[in-house]
Amino acid sequence: MHIPQQAILKEVGPRDGLQNESTTISTDDKVEWINHLSETGLTYIEITSFVHPKWIPQLSDSLQVAKQIKRKPGITYAALVPNQKGLERALEADMDEVSVFMSASESHNQYNINKSINATFPVLQQVVSEARAANKSVRAYVSTVFGCPYEGEVKLEQTLRVCDRLFDMGIDELSIGDTIGVANPIQVENVLTTLERYYDKNAIALHFHNTRGTALANVLTALQCGYATFDSALGGLGGCPYAKGASGNVATDDLLYMLSEMGLTTEVELPKLLQAGEFIQNKLKKSLPSHQMQMVNKGGIT
Amino acid sequence: MHIPQQAILKEVGPRDGLQNESTTISTDDKVEWINHLSETGLTYIEITSFVHPKWIPQLSDSLQVAKQIKRKPGITYAALVPNQKGLERALEADMDEVSVFMSASESHNQYNINKSINATFPVLQQVVSEARAANKSVRAYVSTVFGCPYEGEVKLEQTLRVCDRLFDMGIDELSIGDTIGVANPIQVENVLTTLERYYDKNAIALHFHNTRGTALANVLTALQCGYATFDSALGGLGGCPYAKGASGNVATDDLLYMLSEMGLTTEVELPKLLQAGEFIQNKLKKSLPSHQMQMVNKGGIT
Repeated sequence: MHIPQQAILKEVGPRDGLQNESTTISTDDKVEWINHLSETGLTYIEITSFVHPKWIPQLSDSLQVAKQIKRKPGITYAALVPNQKGLERALEADMDEVSVFMSASESHNQYNINKSINATFPVLQQVVSEARAANKSVRAYVSTVFGCPYEGEVKLEQTLRVCDRLFDMGIDELSIGDTIGVANPIQVENVLTTLERYYDKNAIALHFHNTRGTALANVLTALQCGYATFDSALGGLGGCPYAKGASGNVATDDLLYMLSEMGLTTEVELPKLLQAGEFIQNKLKKSLPSHQMQMVNKGGIT
Repeated sequence: MHIPQQAILKEVGPRDGLQNESTTISTDDKVEWINHLSETGLTYIEITSFVHPKWIPQLSDSLQVAKQIKRKPGITYAALVPNQKGLERALEADMDEVSVFMSASESHNQYNINKSINATFPVLQQVVSEARAANKSVRAYVSTVFGCPYEGEVKLEQTLRVCDRLFDMGIDELSIGDTIGVANPIQVENVLTTLERYYDKNAIALHFHNTRGTALANVLTALQCGYATFDSALGGLGGCPYAKGASGNVATDDLLYMLSEMGLTTEVELPKLLQAGEFIQNKLKKSLPSHQMQMVNKGGIT
C-alpha cells in the first residue's frame, strides 16, 4: 500500500465540535481544555469562531478564549472568520491563521452564509487579502463537497469552481468537507484524483464527518491518493445538524489509533489526547462517542 | 480502485451478536427476528450455536430456534458447533451449514476451547468429516488472527498453520477473525496478500470487529485485495468480551451503506434491515450502536 509516511492532524474540536454541543462550556474550561490539547503533540488547533454571537452562542467568548489560552511555540492556533468584522476580531486576538468558509452547493451556501456563492466570493476575497496583508496564513473550508443536505449530489465542477476561486484569492490551504458524512471511498478517490490535476496535494486537507461510520475508510482512501492532512475532533465531539444524534467529525483519537497502527507518524500522543478527552466530556456531562473514549469510559483497553 | 463488483454479507447477529448480550431474548423473539432477517435479502444467517448451554445461556434454546424458524429457499442457515456433540444437535436441527472454530493464538484457543491448538485439530477433523458425510457444508472460524487479548501480536505463520490444517480437513470456507478489533489496513493487506498465495480468495471471509472504529477501513482494504465475503451483525450487535462496552461485530447496516454507495451489489435491502434492527433492539431494550441505527433512533436521515 503506497501511502504517505506522515500525517498531519488538525484539531477542530474546540470550534467544529463545541459549536454543535448544547451544553454551555465556560470560558475558563475552554481555555483549560485548549491548554490540555496544546500538550498532546498536536501542531494545529482551531480554537474558536469569530462569527456573530447570535449565530453560535457557544462560541460568543471567542476573543477571551483566544487571549487567555497559553500559546505553545510550534502550534498554529486558528479561528474561523466569516467576514471582515470577524477578521478584525481575529486579528485583535492575534490568531496565527484564519479560516474562511463557503459551500460547493448553492443552497447550503445560501442557508449557511445567507448569500449566493457568487456574492460570497468578494466577501472572502477581502478577508483573505487583509489577512495576508497582516501576515496571517489563511485556510478555506469548502462544505458539502460530497453531498448537500438540500441538493443531494454535488457535481465536482461546482467544487472545482469554488476551489479555483479560493486558491486565486491567495489561500494557503483548502479543507474539503464531507459536511453531512455521506462520502464513500470510491467518491473520495474520484474527487481527490480530480483535484490533484489542478492543485498541490499538500495544500489540501480532508474534513470528514463520521455520520455513517465511513470516515476512517475515507481517510484510508485519501492516504492512498497521497493526501496526508486531516481535520478531526477529539472524541468525535459535535454532531451533525442535519442528522440529529449522529456522529460528528471523525474522532482525532480513533484516527490517531488507525494511523499509528499503520505506521504513520503524527507527533500526537494518544494517552494525552484521551486525558484531554476526559476533561472535556466531564465538562459536557456526557460520554464522547469515539471508540477510544468509549473504551476509556468503560474501563476497557486503552 | 479495483474491487469486486459484488459482496456477500454473512449475518452473524443471532449468534455472535446475541451471545454477547446480557438481556435474555425469548425463543419466540429469536425466531421472529430471524424470520425478519430472512426477508431482507440476506443469503446467509448464522442463527445460533450448539455449544453447551452452560457456556452461552443466551443460546441454550438453539435446537428450538433452528426448528421453529421459517426457512426461506436460497438462504443458508448456519450454526456454530464446537464438537461432535454439537454437530449431532446441528444435524438434528437440519442446519444447512455448520461452523467450527479455533484460534490462531495458543492461549486464546486454550481459554476459549479449553484445549491446545494441537489437541483441537482431531476434534474438528471428526466434526468436519461427519458434517461432510451428512452433506453439510462446513465453515471454520480462525480467531485472533490480527491480535490476541493474551499474547498481543500473532505471527502470520501461526495463522497459516491453522488455516492449512482446516482446509486439509475439507472445510468449504474460512472466516478470518479480528476477534478483539485491533486490525489496521496495512496489517489486513499483509495478511490477505499472504493468504492469497495459498488459498482461493473466494473461500475466505473476513470477520471484523469494530472495537476501535477501523472495521470499515479494513473491509475496504480487503475489497482492494480482492476479497468479497464479510461477516457482520445487524446494528453492531454484541460486544467484545475483552474490551467492556466496546463495539461488537462490524454492523451489517453500516457495511451495507458503504458497499452500496461504492456501487457494489449485495442483494440486501437497507430499509428492511433497519426494520429488523428496530425489532431486536426493542427486545433488547437498548439502542443498537451502528451509525444507521443511531440515525433511525434519533429520527434523522435513514
